[in-house]
Amino acid sequence: MKLYVIGIGPGGADQMTPRARAAIEASDIIAGYTTYIDLVRPLIEGKEILQTPMKQEIDRCTRARDAALTGKTVAMICSGDAGVYGMAGLMHEVCADHPDIDIEVVPGITAACAGAAVLGAPLVHDFAVISLSDLLTPWEKIEKRLDFASQADFCICLYNPSSKKRADYLQKACDIMLKSRLPDTPCGYVQNIGRAGECGTVCTLAQLRDTSVDMFTTVFIGNSQTRVIGGKLVTPRGYETK
Amino acid sequence: MKLYVIGIGPGGADQMTPRARAAIEASDIIAGYTTYIDLVRPLIEGKEILQTPMKQEIDRCTRARDAALTGKTVAMICSGDAGVYGMAGLMHEVCADHPDIDIEVVPGITAACAGAAVLGAPLVHDFAVISLSDLLTPWEKIEKRLDFASQADFCICLYNPSSKKRADYLQKACDIMLKSRLPDTPCGYVQNIGRAGECGTVCTLAQLRDTSVDMFTTVFIGNSQTRVIGGKLVTPRGYETK
Ligand SMILES: C[S@@+](CC[C@H](N)C(=O)[O-])C[C@H]1O[C@@H](n2cnc3c(N)ncnc32)[C@H](O)[C@@H]1O
Ligand SMILES: C[S@@+](CC[C@H](N)C(=O)[O-])C[C@H]1O[C@@H](n2cnc3c(N)ncnc32)[C@H](O)[C@@H]1O
Repeated sequence: MKLYVIGIGPGGADQMTPRARAAIEASDIIAGYTTYIDLVRPLIEGKEILQTPMKQEIDRCTRARDAALTGKTVAMICSGDAGVYGMAGLMHEVCADHPDIDIEVVPGITAACAGAAVLGAPLVHDFAVISLSDLLTPWEKIEKRLDFASQADFCICLYNPSSKKRADYLQKACDIMLKSRLPDTPCGYVQNIGRAGECGTVCTLAQLRDTSVDMFTTVFIGNSQTRVIGGKLVTPRGYETK
Repeated sequence: MKLYVIGIGPGGADQMTPRARAAIEASDIIAGYTTYIDLVRPLIEGKEILQTPMKQEIDRCTRARDAALTGKTVAMICSGDAGVYGMAGLMHEVCADHPDIDIEVVPGITAACAGAAVLGAPLVHDFAVISLSDLLTPWEKIEKRLDFASQADFCICLYNPSSKKRADYLQKACDIMLKSRLPDTPCGYVQNIGRAGECGTVCTLAQLRDTSVDMFTTVFIGNSQTRVIGGKLVTPRGYETK
């Protein structure tokens, strides 16, 4: 019994690997958010589609598992990488009592890497990836991670920087980082990476604090070495260039 | 004038995106380590190849830049993602005085994501990526990052865990993390991700401390929630599964 958990990359087919494509083609049933299923629509003609409403992650994984238990090959589609705030973990959890299901995680390009490429090269050195969503994590834990990552001079990449209920979380996060980072630390954010309307912006940490971003945005905070070179956000790896 | 910096993913052609392939095909001159050039050999028949010995990164980027200045389209090939310990940053640095060169970073699947998929889903929650190479970073800074990331309960992914000169660095790193993490914290490491000889191993932090790994290995340290499920390393995202 085979269950793929597939990262399709940030957007269109040209950023999805042949391996992901082949796994989708080999599957009988496709599960995932409608948005992601739409991105692979041309590949899945004639296949059965399992849809469940937003936020029903456990339900979606359980239904995918049950479909796999009938002997069909199932693909759970995730945007970006399936293992970065994706379904790969939950799928292993809901299948814990079914060792006969062979779960194969197919990696994809995550928003951190795809967004960094749009801005230049902000994550070339050590970096931390933090989600600002407190739906499943206590805010105090998120604050501690922001604080410690900032103090240890990591480049920082923020996922889930905003939602209707969390309009001021990016501001709060910037205030924490401003305790140990200069206000003119080079930062940036990218909306709709790899999709229609892709838009990258370079700014300072002080400016980022007063910016509103939507949930289709990934945010980057430079470390103490990050510079803006020709409009691009670049973290030197430490090479002497002169 | 066009200069691509291309992440080809962890190994074979099936983990390279169509966008990366198209950029290679569109280039007149290919630069990069021989190992990576060999991975794309079938795509570059008849193209000019710029090679420089290992460790001469600045020289390699400068030569690629100079080739681009002659009007040829140049591709600098990196393994994994070009923006994670890759050439994307240095290329922007060496081209700083040449705004007429259009540098396009083409992202790829980085070893953190590709290796995580082999082990299961260790990086589903907030994580930190740290290189153990002190060639370009003072070891004290690396220690601080290990310490703070460990204390803030990040999942941790280590690149460059070893070299001939740094045989005991992984042990030192584990000792730092053992100050704030339990010895039975689930960990893992993956050798030759996506290449011949790919091999993933799950172990504890105490076992990892006494393990020798080579430079083609990426190492994963779980957070306080990480579990082993059916032999796979899984970090829950926080969903209630029962
Ligand atoms: C639940 S996470 C999923 C991440 C995904 N698995 C990945 O690896 O990219 C959703 C968050 O990822 C980021 N994200 C994912 N895809 C994006 C895209 N195409 N453009 C901008 N941000 C994106 C945003 O921060 C968004 O709020
Ligand atoms: C200079 S870094 C390059 C990283 C690369 N740009 C990436 O995004 O994966 C080299 C380190 O990356 C990791 N690495 C890269 N490719 C790997 C592979 N195929 N298998 C295992 N580890 C790999 C190892 O830790 C290695 O020491």
